[in-house]
Amino acid sequence: MTLAVFGYGYWGPNLVRNFTAIGQTVKYVVDSSAAQRQKAEKAYPTVTATADAEVVLNDSDVDAIIIAIPVRYHYEIAKKALLAGKHALVEKPMTMTGDEADELIEIASKNKLVLMSDHTFLYTGAVKKIKALIEAGDLGDVLYFDSTRVDVGLFQSDVNVLWDLAPHDISILSYLINDKPISVAATGKAHVGASRENIAFLTMNYNIDFIAHANVSWISPVKIRKVLIGGTKKMIVYDDIEPSEKVRVYDSGFEIKDIEEQNKFKVDYRMGDVLIPKLDTTEALADMARDFVKAIESGGKHSPLSDMHLGALVVKTLEAAEKSIKQNGAEIKL
Amino acid sequence: MTLAVFGYGYWGPNLVRNFTAIGQTVKYVVDSSAAQRQKAEKAYPTVTATADAEVVLNDSDVDAIIIAIPVRYHYEIAKKALLAGKHALVEKPMTMTGDEADELIEIASKNKLVLMSDHTFLYTGAVKKIKALIEAGDLGDVLYFDSTRVDVGLFQSDVNVLWDLAPHDISILSYLINDKPISVAATGKAHVGASRENIAFLTMNYNIDFIAHANVSWISPVKIRKVLIGGTKKMIVYDDIEPSEKVRVYDSGFEIKDIEEQNKFKVDYRMGDVLIPKLDTTEALADMARDFVKAIESGGKHSPLSDMHLGALVVKTLEAAEKSIKQNGAEIKL
Amino acid sequence: MTLAVFGYGYWGPNLVRNFTAIGQTVKYVVDSSAAQRQKAEKAYPTVTATADAEVVLNDSDVDAIIIAIPVRYHYEIAKKALLAGKHALVEKPMTMTGDEADELIEIASKNKLVLMSDHTFLYTGAVKKIKALIEAGDLGDVLYFDSTRVDVGLFQSDVNVLWDLAPHDISILSYLINDKPISVAATGKAHVGASRENIAFLTMNYNIDFIAHANVSWISPVKIRKVLIGGTKKMIVYDDIEPSEKVRVYDSGFEIKDIEEQNKFKVDYRMGDVLIPKLDTTEALADMARDFVKAIESGGKHSPLSDMHLGALVVKTLEAAEKSIKQNGAEIKL
Amino acid sequence: MTLAVFGYGYWGPNLVRNFTAIGQTVKYVVDSSAAQRQKAEKAYPTVTATADAEVVLNDSDVDAIIIAIPVRYHYEIAKKALLAGKHALVEKPMTMTGDEADELIEIASKNKLVLMSDHTFLYTGAVKKIKALIEAGDLGDVLYFDSTRVDVGLFQSDVNVLWDLAPHDISILSYLINDKPISVAATGKAHVGASRENIAFLTMNYNIDFIAHANVSWISPVKIRKVLIGGTKKMIVYDDIEPSEKVRVYDSGFEIKDIEEQNKFKVDYRMGDVLIPKLDTTEALADMARDFVKAIESGGKHSPLSDMHLGALVVKTLEAAEKSIKQNGAEIKL
Repeated sequence: MTLAVFGYGYWGPNLVRNFTAIGQTVKYVVDSSAAQRQKAEKAYPTVTATADAEVVLNDSDVDAIIIAIPVRYHYEIAKKALLAGKHALVEKPMTMTGDEADELIEIASKNKLVLMSDHTFLYTGAVKKIKALIEAGDLGDVLYFDSTRVDVGLFQSDVNVLWDLAPHDISILSYLINDKPISVAATGKAHVGASRENIAFLTMNYNIDFIAHANVSWISPVKIRKVLIGGTKKMIVYDDIEPSEKVRVYDSGFEIKDIEEQNKFKVDYRMGDVLIPKLDTTEALADMARDFVKAIESGGKHSPLSDMHLGALVVKTLEAAEKSIKQNGAEIKL
Repeated sequence: MTLAVFGYGYWGPNLVRNFTAIGQTVKYVVDSSAAQRQKAEKAYPTVTATADAEVVLNDSDVDAIIIAIPVRYHYEIAKKALLAGKHALVEKPMTMTGDEADELIEIASKNKLVLMSDHTFLYTGAVKKIKALIEAGDLGDVLYFDSTRVDVGLFQSDVNVLWDLAPHDISILSYLINDKPISVAATGKAHVGASRENIAFLTMNYNIDFIAHANVSWISPVKIRKVLIGGTKKMIVYDDIEPSEKVRVYDSGFEIKDIEEQNKFKVDYRMGDVLIPKLDTTEALADMARDFVKAIESGGKHSPLSDMHLGALVVKTLEAAEKSIKQNGAEIKL
Repeated sequence: MTLAVFGYGYWGPNLVRNFTAIGQTVKYVVDSSAAQRQKAEKAYPTVTATADAEVVLNDSDVDAIIIAIPVRYHYEIAKKALLAGKHALVEKPMTMTGDEADELIEIASKNKLVLMSDHTFLYTGAVKKIKALIEAGDLGDVLYFDSTRVDVGLFQSDVNVLWDLAPHDISILSYLINDKPISVAATGKAHVGASRENIAFLTMNYNIDFIAHANVSWISPVKIRKVLIGGTKKMIVYDDIEPSEKVRVYDSGFEIKDIEEQNKFKVDYRMGDVLIPKLDTTEALADMARDFVKAIESGGKHSPLSDMHLGALVVKTLEAAEKSIKQNGAEIKL
Repeated sequence: MTLAVFGYGYWGPNLVRNFTAIGQTVKYVVDSSAAQRQKAEKAYPTVTATADAEVVLNDSDVDAIIIAIPVRYHYEIAKKALLAGKHALVEKPMTMTGDEADELIEIASKNKLVLMSDHTFLYTGAVKKIKALIEAGDLGDVLYFDSTRVDVGLFQSDVNVLWDLAPHDISILSYLINDKPISVAATGKAHVGASRENIAFLTMNYNIDFIAHANVSWISPVKIRKVLIGGTKKMIVYDDIEPSEKVRVYDSGFEIKDIEEQNKFKVDYRMGDVLIPKLDTTEALADMARDFVKAIESGGKHSPLSDMHLGALVVKTLEAAEKSIKQNGAEIKL
């Protein structure tokens, strides 16, 4: 397959490296910065680095476009690529609005093209292990997903902290529980003169007996990536900062023994062993790249884990969350 | 001073022990359970344990009543005590409603009696150290308070998880920043047939450039007591589970260098040393007890850290938060 | 059973509390300090506190003596007790010399009395779990026991750091591997003018393919209680400081695949899951107390875990270790 | 400067990368494996990869040789290089025997060539910070250095675990305290049929009031890199596994108040703050490379941190330690 990668900033080099490693041909790297283009050509002598998107979009050799540019340009480039008959892989979040996401999905569907949103975390050993545990029924009914994802990072000029960090939580949890939120409520703060929120709190409500919450921030003293996932049988702590113990499975669910009296019910906790399973350490990005290629090669029969519908769901959830923040936490239906 | 302690369940014995240790006389323990009364008399042969509250309230020897019974009885007993001319120390939360709190405050004020709510955490070495750092200006402007306070505990039949755990956060943060929330927004879930929330998320909004959030749960796989406090100069991680390193001070605030462009501002992070200060290890409950006694002895001149106004603020914040949960996160003004 | 406890300093009160809790009668507490005697009588009104050892040793009511006084008096009091026909429980280390230990064992055996050395750690949930794992063959062949046991503590005037801390390691490892060292080598240092070592390193050699090492110190910046136990199949990290994760079982033993070439053998490591088992949380001291009572009641049929032979082994190992230190690490046969 | 790197296995590529990065020319990579030579030429198109050491040693363009081959060939290649008038940087340990080290030093000195042993740890931010703290007198008198350096690694066929891991400890501590051991005592075990020790314990004795100990192993369940360094004023925990908190400074030294009575001295511990300083994060290997170049360019005026005398000291200490292991821990004078 012949590919073009748009954007050679922070993430682009990883994409070129991984698609090359799985045997695909990256023909173009598109970047407006001459310095970045030079870096790309030095690292990959066979790649043509250019600032001219049109040349790339009009090159009939190119089968698929990979989009790793700032979020506000995702929709425009992806649309052009799809209309030019090319498959498209878009970094997260897929677009700035749900309407844009829906339009891209419609174009892709009509033209039988693969549109995929890169939520790389779905391909990590940790998330795959948690998914397997849930699928196997080990957790019982999943009751909540509670994430703390905070950074000692630099502010982004493009989007607020919710659009930067919450896509990870929304995509992971959608994958894990196989369900969509029916409404969201969010609060946040744009501190010290900032125009965009640098700290935010998001609750997602579901039709099932389940609640999800994400706490995201750019202004933490320490980096935290900790998700608590509670089930009626077992519970999980997923700490992505841990080098070798990312997933801990607690044999400590709970069962209600007696619901007779509304205000005096008894709960029986089991506090048992903790298991830290050995995780698959294949690079997640390589797996994601393979999934994209497989989807294209299957002619639409294989649907990737991180597909366009998940991409759209993430965008719509963020859109609703931002609306809720503006209304100081009011519930927004999805 | 002669005291009576109402309730000899989980917390009562600690109160008797501490008030005795600071040289006060506990004349009565009041408990409806014969087993608990027996325990009290065995441990403290000079104490009279009784189930008859009226006898105690009518005994003119008794200067002050300490109330460690279920929350729903706080108001009734505290009111009777105050009307009988006795000072009252009430466990947290002080009452079930803001109106009850206001009424108790009015009675106490009119009768020149001390009414105090026991928010013990204010007296810990950790909170005192953080308060001192903020007062000294070390943190710069305080930007947020973000608490995770989750338990692998048993459900309470009396109140929901917000009323059980959030009083700690509301009281600590009110003490630390010396300000009151103007509104709250909260979400939560009563899982698996429970009538009361066992997991909840609370945002508190202020008139200043500050936001507070608390994440409370009874159904976590692990116990967590972690508060992030961010300032423009320094930031703090306050982890109450840590045996010897509860407070960590990060030399990693941030300063905006350039606010010219709204969407492209630059932030300069300083990532410097971390300091783990030595903390005062006096038992907090003994200090709280001393503060109550001092307030009584001063004839109203000394106002305790954990005074009745703080107690009322906590109750009103919780009341508003519960209202917000029922409205799925809608902002409730205070 | 009627008991007398010698010594009401740091450990004595725990002994009185536990023997009382399991239903035995503590008739006497013997202590030379009037202040300590007063404390004992206040806490236990039915106990007679005295400074007169002879009265106690001559009281025919007394069935057994529990010795929690400084090490240098252990032998003298234990001998008198045994000669007076009383069973004896002696705190660790049992005596100052191997000869003293042998003499006490001889007297106890001749008079059919129980002599026991209190190595409480053998009764903890952690050590019992490790023992069970080894017995079940989960670790395969046990290859080494490597302990770091260091304190930020006060110096003892009575003994050096080896006699203070290493008894824990020697008793635990003897229990775990069911074997005796054939020789020891030790080094250490008495710093800053001290007459006794405050830091020491001990190697114990065995007839089997196994080695044990203990690193003990009073002058560490942090308290550490960490033991690595390696087997051919699994390995254990036993960290006694951890509140809820004391024992971690690593599925990472090793097997040699090819011993053909002496200098080029291959080792196959398996790095698998980690299991943190739920431990029994009964108080170890209560179990130890029950074991002593059971041994007495059985008339010698029941041999306690922490018996006099283990006590003697610990003393002889320490004695040899101290000799080795004086010879700068030379091997001392046992 | 024109360089040749001998060995392109695990460490060689890092050396080529770093010397290239600081602007030096690597003309040759010498490796007996065709696969490794191919890797080198692919990564560095300007490098000539060869199996023929003689060609390289005879090329008058080459100013210096960098030796990253198995330890048993260090002496032979370094000697040839020095005799060919080339400077030599040798990976640790410098040689297999102290005599070899002395001979190389003699040749280098006579020919005014730089001979350097690469003890990279000396150039890390952590070790530099600890050195600065000691130099500034912050620790007071340094009393001990106690290292645990254990791996879940593969056995080396070349040397035992002492020669593999202890060079780090010996070089770091020699640098930190600026003194040499006068004798060593070591014990160890070659398990499960191995011909070389896979676990070993080393004590180093000094003329000053100081002791050093290193605990090294290849068969641990977990990787540990923890060094305790105690001083009369402050103490340090240096944990090289920690990603961002490698050095912790404890304000908890000790001072003896009263040495009157030999057996009853009092020690006053100060348990104060802990400071985790921000460390320099420059790559240590680049600094080491610069130090080597600087030494050559200075014509012998600049002596590198990790000089040939340190290299020889490490080898002689290891040699003595291995002798001690064979004598079951007997003290070996240096």
